[in-house]
Amino acid sequence: MKKYTQISDISNLSETIKEAILLKMNPYEHQHLGKNKTLVMLFFNSSLRTRLSTEKAAKNLGMDVMSLNVNDAWNLEFEDGTVMDASTSEHVKEAAKVISQYADIIAVRAFPSLKDREKDATEMVIKSFEKYATVPIVNMESATAHPLQALADAITISELSEKSRPKVVMSWAPHPRALPQAVPNSFVEMMQKMDVDLTITHPEGYELNPEITKDTPINYNQDEALKDADFVYAKNWSSYTDYGNVISRDRTWMITKEKLGHAKFMHCLPVRRNVIVEDAVLDSDQSIVMQEANNRTYAAQIVMKGILENL
Amino acid sequence: MKKYTQISDISNLSETIKEAILLKMNPYEHQHLGKNKTLVMLFFNSSLRTRLSTEKAAKNLGMDVMSLNVNDAWNLEFEDGTVMDASTSEHVKEAAKVISQYADIIAVRAFPSLKDREKDATEMVIKSFEKYATVPIVNMESATAHPLQALADAITISELSEKSRPKVVMSWAPHPRALPQAVPNSFVEMMQKMDVDLTITHPEGYELNPEITKDTPINYNQDEALKDADFVYAKNWSSYTDYGNVISRDRTWMITKEKLGHAKFMHCLPVRRNVIVEDAVLDSDQSIVMQEANNRTYAAQIVMKGILENL
Amino acid sequence: MKKYTQISDISNLSETIKEAILLKMNPYEHQHLGKNKTLVMLFFNSSLRTRLSTEKAAKNLGMDVMSLNVNDAWNLEFEDGTVMDASTSEHVKEAAKVISQYADIIAVRAFPSLKDREKDATEMVIKSFEKYATVPIVNMESATAHPLQALADAITISELSEKSRPKVVMSWAPHPRALPQAVPNSFVEMMQKMDVDLTITHPEGYELNPEITKDTPINYNQDEALKDADFVYAKNWSSYTDYGNVISRDRTWMITKEKLGHAKFMHCLPVRRNVIVEDAVLDSDQSIVMQEANNRTYAAQIVMKGILENL
Repeated sequence: MKKYTQISDISNLSETIKEAILLKMNPYEHQHLGKNKTLVMLFFNSSLRTRLSTEKAAKNLGMDVMSLNVNDAWNLEFEDGTVMDASTSEHVKEAAKVISQYADIIAVRAFPSLKDREKDATEMVIKSFEKYATVPIVNMESATAHPLQALADAITISELSEKSRPKVVMSWAPHPRALPQAVPNSFVEMMQKMDVDLTITHPEGYELNPEITKDTPINYNQDEALKDADFVYAKNWSSYTDYGNVISRDRTWMITKEKLGHAKFMHCLPVRRNVIVEDAVLDSDQSIVMQEANNRTYAAQIVMKGILENL
Repeated sequence: MKKYTQISDISNLSETIKEAILLKMNPYEHQHLGKNKTLVMLFFNSSLRTRLSTEKAAKNLGMDVMSLNVNDAWNLEFEDGTVMDASTSEHVKEAAKVISQYADIIAVRAFPSLKDREKDATEMVIKSFEKYATVPIVNMESATAHPLQALADAITISELSEKSRPKVVMSWAPHPRALPQAVPNSFVEMMQKMDVDLTITHPEGYELNPEITKDTPINYNQDEALKDADFVYAKNWSSYTDYGNVISRDRTWMITKEKLGHAKFMHCLPVRRNVIVEDAVLDSDQSIVMQEANNRTYAAQIVMKGILENL
Repeated sequence: MKKYTQISDISNLSETIKEAILLKMNPYEHQHLGKNKTLVMLFFNSSLRTRLSTEKAAKNLGMDVMSLNVNDAWNLEFEDGTVMDASTSEHVKEAAKVISQYADIIAVRAFPSLKDREKDATEMVIKSFEKYATVPIVNMESATAHPLQALADAITISELSEKSRPKVVMSWAPHPRALPQAVPNSFVEMMQKMDVDLTITHPEGYELNPEITKDTPINYNQDEALKDADFVYAKNWSSYTDYGNVISRDRTWMITKEKLGHAKFMHCLPVRRNVIVEDAVLDSDQSIVMQEANNRTYAAQIVMKGILENL
């Protein structure tokens, strides 16, 4: 693997998932790979799972890890040709090249503005690091994608599916704040590559980028969509068409035990209890959110193992 | 040892102190114990000694360490059954279980509100982690207790006492701000388990929780209390009865060289010079605050060694 | 080496530079030196290059690293004899001694106020750590000096000079904000010890401390100064005479490709593009800012190697 900024960087998904599951049984056996190698994690935004699981994965591989909250250092400039006489004190050209000299892999987290759809779509932060860094880049959630989360989700479904072609339903759920589309985007893209029967359900107006959803069925009727589901993946996102806005907080979309049927419940976390999903679901054996979170480590580890082998 | 959230988690105190003193002479000999084990330190509040000494202790034991300032990630929800549509974005149920999957030990620091005595007494943060985490918890100072500090103090007194049953006086001292009762609570509890002659002295109204002080003598006359002391432990705390309030800033309670007599001076640090204690004391050989701070490492190390042996 | 708080702590500069260049080829060969040794990095101010390169250097040497943003812990008191009843909660006397017990080397970054020249000149923070710590101190940029940067610059010039006695010109350049004199001070001091032909150029009123510049030629005419330069070191600083003030933002002082001639361009970074220097310079092969940034690691590493050998 040369980098992992998008799902298409995985050349053989089923093989990668299989290897990740094997890795879990013996997580420390590749520590020679990371010896004297350094992961630098750059956070433009806050993180709990991603920070801890990626650091853990790197250490499992024998790497050293250095973390930087970028905004505690300098405000970076991303535009070309700017006269930098305002608030930005370092251009990403310099930052990315300099950090590349201290790192063997750079992992970056940078959320979207949710103000300007075209600008968010350019993925300026992660793309700039890809362009200017001289070492491989790992995406720890960017403006429009969260490929490590999607890989953890794919591993989890592979491990826990009791069918050859399970029905997977991704359902929008309400939330008080405007959230990015990164997680649903990457989940949809990932599921499209797997042997699953995928349906998306959300209120009208919550259509994701059609270049991502493509011909995946979208059903505005949640009850219909959820029927006979094997996996229900709940997630809130703000509107893509009315970009970045919360156009509904309709609580009837909350996932309940009744709606879930016999399906397994998935969510990337953090999750708002009794808003996205009721306690009865999360506290039941049907919830597999902990397995997903655990697989974050192995998703990051299989990716970085692939990158280290390719250095 | 299964965890260390309270002093009573130590089954054999004198043995533990003896082992800690031995550990000091050879701090790196147990590095096999921590190999491929991870300590996650969670800070809800700021820290200097505790952060550095606990991290150092873990590394002495061969562990990896990951630190998270929790408030830089998400605001956690601690109440059961809440509809999480306000400011908290993750429930401690999920956070504790998720972090348990990345950690072999979780250490937590969370101060009291000092607004609501009953609520602080529930020790919601540390108890929630104890309840929901699936790995052992270490208390790096909670609302009402600081058992690592108390263990460091016990080690220090054991090392430096020239008597079989020294007289130990814990004295309240003035401070401009309202401070928790955690340190004095744990010091009293710890001393009650040791072979020392313990006296507490403070202005009227500064009585600690009587369930902790029990039958330990309390003397409102500092001069009388300090007479013939071998160890004077100075500490400010806010009122327990008039909860969380500063009811006196009486500077005559400051520890001076004259008041100290031939006793050794102890304080958990950070200490306000010339408010809690005069320079002449801190800068003299009678001050053993540095030995206490140094023993923070070995207190944390003996505790985590016990936990690692029990995993 | 006993410490590295100022350039004069290097006893044999040319030997140190030679060793640093050798170290680069085999950065991991001294890992036994740092085994079970800990670097504590204390940041009173933000940092990107210094934080990452110093951490990397320590890990290359086999050390453990613990970082603390001091202001996230306590406000430190530096004055002697203060009655600490205001905002400072810990005296540097205690902090430095305590941290010394957890560390084998302490590295400190603390910028000047730029308000009070006499006070900044006392170098209170770094000098206090030197005075009270019981382990060696490394300066990661103090009020008036940045000796690690200067050592990296010296290594870079040694590596890339095509002449036995190159002409080095340090040129002031404009910047929207008031910056410290630490970098230019240390660069001048370092060049004075090397076999280079050093000239300083800046607008009138930007004279640095004459005790540092000594008899180094100063030319107010930038064009004249830059003539036939082999290395041009650009840097902004605020006025030393009109202390801490920006007395000119004259854009004609920006370094351009034309002004540069055939010289190599140096800057410590972060650099304001098209303010300090135009894109055409930074994006050309004449820019050696990346080599400088890379040498930050080896400057820190050769210094800490010397200190570890001397422990």
